[in-house]
Amino acid sequence: MIETERKFLVTSEAFKAEAIRQQKIVQGYLNSAPERTVRVRIKGDRAFLTIKGKSNDSGLSRYEWEKEISVEEAEALLKLCEPGMVEKVRYEVNSGNHIFEVDEFFGANKGLLLAEVELTSEEEEYEKPSWLGKEVSGAKRYYNSYLVNQPYQTWKIEEQ
Amino acid sequence: MIETERKFLVTSEAFKAEAIRQQKIVQGYLNSAPERTVRVRIKGDRAFLTIKGKSNDSGLSRYEWEKEISVEEAEALLKLCEPGMVEKVRYEVNSGNHIFEVDEFFGANKGLLLAEVELTSEEEEYEKPSWLGKEVSGAKRYYNSYLVNQPYQTWKIEEQ
Repeated sequence: MIETERKFLVTSEAFKAEAIRQQKIVQGYLNSAPERTVRVRIKGDRAFLTIKGKSNDSGLSRYEWEKEISVEEAEALLKLCEPGMVEKVRYEVNSGNHIFEVDEFFGANKGLLLAEVELTSEEEEYEKPSWLGKEVSGAKRYYNSYLVNQPYQTWKIEEQ
Repeated sequence: MIETERKFLVTSEAFKAEAIRQQKIVQGYLNSAPERTVRVRIKGDRAFLTIKGKSNDSGLSRYEWEKEISVEEAEALLKLCEPGMVEKVRYEVNSGNHIFEVDEFFGANKGLLLAEVELTSEEEEYEKPSWLGKEVSGAKRYYNSYLVNQPYQTWKIEEQ
């Protein structure tokens, strides 16, 4: 199916007090190319294999295929992945009729906070939380698949 | 799981008369790298997503993960694959206690015939059919993932 998502920087940690849920995520890539991303993810006590195509011209929509797999399968597949792993904690925060997912990154991406909201169309309105920063939808360097090879801590100061 | 397979060239089309079954296969790759091959396959009226790791030192064994998916999912995923597709007809031939799978390739790989037998261990004995040629187990240029990028018809005569 086609997924429509908007992605944003986050200006403060105020979202943590509003979170209704948080889960640890570890993920690796069997292919980190944006045209055919193949991701192995362990999220809490569940695991998923996800394949994404390249994003459309607006940068908001992307074909996405996902299947749940067992944590044991994910652990075996993570060993085959490209070098580098993304580790983060995902916070879920209600905002109007939507749920924002805010990722706090660790390891080589420590210091980076990113928020995402899934929409049913590119035109759908959404309520902006106070801590929501600049929109970075479609910016490839904020793709998690990019952060595996070029982690946040290696970016030049002016890029952060 | 770990799959153990031996692969051979085929010296004649005599296998066709012995085949108990034949099926059309079309496949593409979300990653054709031998360390983390991600294959999308439509085989007859079924479809599979298969992930393979690199082969061990003997070239006979390789980690393999496979899930059946719908033909519709496979058709969507084939559109994301790397350029190039492998098309072949697979013949199944009984030989002693084993089944040999013989692939007759089409398109850019026309002229190539490859036989494979799956074993439960690297030491397991098997009966050799009369049409079985030189063993090419572990030879990367006979990997289907290699044939996508370097099809048989582009090989120099002395390599064939």
